[in-house]
Amino acid sequence: MTKIKLYELVGLDERYMSPFCWRAKMALAHKKLDFEIVPIKFTEKHKLKFSDQEQVPVIVDGEQVVADSWSIACYLEDTYSDAASLFTSEDQRRLLRVFNHWFDEIITLKLFPLVLPDNFDVVYPEDMDYYIESRRQWTGKTREELTQDRSEDDFIAWRASLAPLREQLNGFDYFGGISPNFQDYIVFSTFMWARAVSPWPIIKPGDIIHDWRERMLGLYDGLAGKTTGYHY
Amino acid sequence: MTKIKLYELVGLDERYMSPFCWRAKMALAHKKLDFEIVPIKFTEKHKLKFSDQEQVPVIVDGEQVVADSWSIACYLEDTYSDAASLFTSEDQRRLLRVFNHWFDEIITLKLFPLVLPDNFDVVYPEDMDYYIESRRQWTGKTREELTQDRSEDDFIAWRASLAPLREQLNGFDYFGGISPNFQDYIVFSTFMWARAVSPWPIIKPGDIIHDWRERMLGLYDGLAGKTTGYHY
Repeated sequence: MTKIKLYELVGLDERYMSPFCWRAKMALAHKKLDFEIVPIKFTEKHKLKFSDQEQVPVIVDGEQVVADSWSIACYLEDTYSDAASLFTSEDQRRLLRVFNHWFDEIITLKLFPLVLPDNFDVVYPEDMDYYIESRRQWTGKTREELTQDRSEDDFIAWRASLAPLREQLNGFDYFGGISPNFQDYIVFSTFMWARAVSPWPIIKPGDIIHDWRERMLGLYDGLAGKTTGYHY
Repeated sequence: MTKIKLYELVGLDERYMSPFCWRAKMALAHKKLDFEIVPIKFTEKHKLKFSDQEQVPVIVDGEQVVADSWSIACYLEDTYSDAASLFTSEDQRRLLRVFNHWFDEIITLKLFPLVLPDNFDVVYPEDMDYYIESRRQWTGKTREELTQDRSEDDFIAWRASLAPLREQLNGFDYFGGISPNFQDYIVFSTFMWARAVSPWPIIKPGDIIHDWRERMLGLYDGLAGKTTGYHY
């Protein structure tokens, strides 16, 4: 069997800074599939032309090309159904899809303005013009304005918004219960993006989400924990 | 066995207009438990003093007093474990709790300003002063301002926000799959509140969520469908 290729966004010092790519990567590791990363810079989207779209993650598995982290998880689940399941049931998969949408809206999107200012420091020089302009178009703000706008209070509010997740995790090692499932990878991916690009500690020791993140960093022989990032 | 009492908010013409009470009521029906409604007006919160708090729903089951719709669902599930389950698994229950929080934030809360203006028409005269003042404190607006602020575009945007729910429902009769579970009651409750108080059709025929709502209205011998409300 040839290795599966994962096209993944990369920044300076091999910083893997796309939450969506982390979802795909953790899903591949969960299934114990052999894969290799094809690093993609912001300005290398032409390298994804074969996938008929221009977003990472993309996986290539022999003849199969799959883009989008949720589609990749479903592809892996259905194709490698003998390997450990990413979902606890078909019902859970359907409910988790709603969770996936709302997690991005309530948790990930709200973290963006808080982490974005630091993200500029870890973008390749050749990507910088693209990065500055695309973020300005997206947020309506420059890096300086984004930096001025954020405060410790924003982080406190963001951490407070994790309350429903703390409630679910309470008493368990993983969102999946005794072992991680794709919900864990969805949540974890956002922490991995922040860890890769910003020294600001989005989560602090003593929080059960911090304990859980530590467990996640150690999974699969430290797949995530070994990558370049800030420690907190 | 004595009947379980459900303390439920009521408006003019027996309009049951609390989404949270609908969750408890549908859960009671799901479990095929014998219950009776104790109608409570906005200004009758003193009648809930025995529960050490002042929000509906409250159920009284013999010696047991339980408030809060989620706590009621869990109480019923754990106490009447032989009856049809409200959850598909313990894992699903934990994930559904997160869904519950975010559904209220993303779907129910965003519908409030759209439906509130009409809600004034179905409040008991003796509740009106309380209602006007509490809504003004909550929204910062009068009924007239709320009415001026809403438009058909708001409803279109709200319906669009249901997209993840449509995706989950697609191909199934219920969010629970072939039969309803507590997720169905969470979602349905918001539609029941709107149906009880506002002639504005928040959902339209041709939408799979409308078809699902029709099925929900017919459940348990038309428990919901028979109550006073607007038809669309």
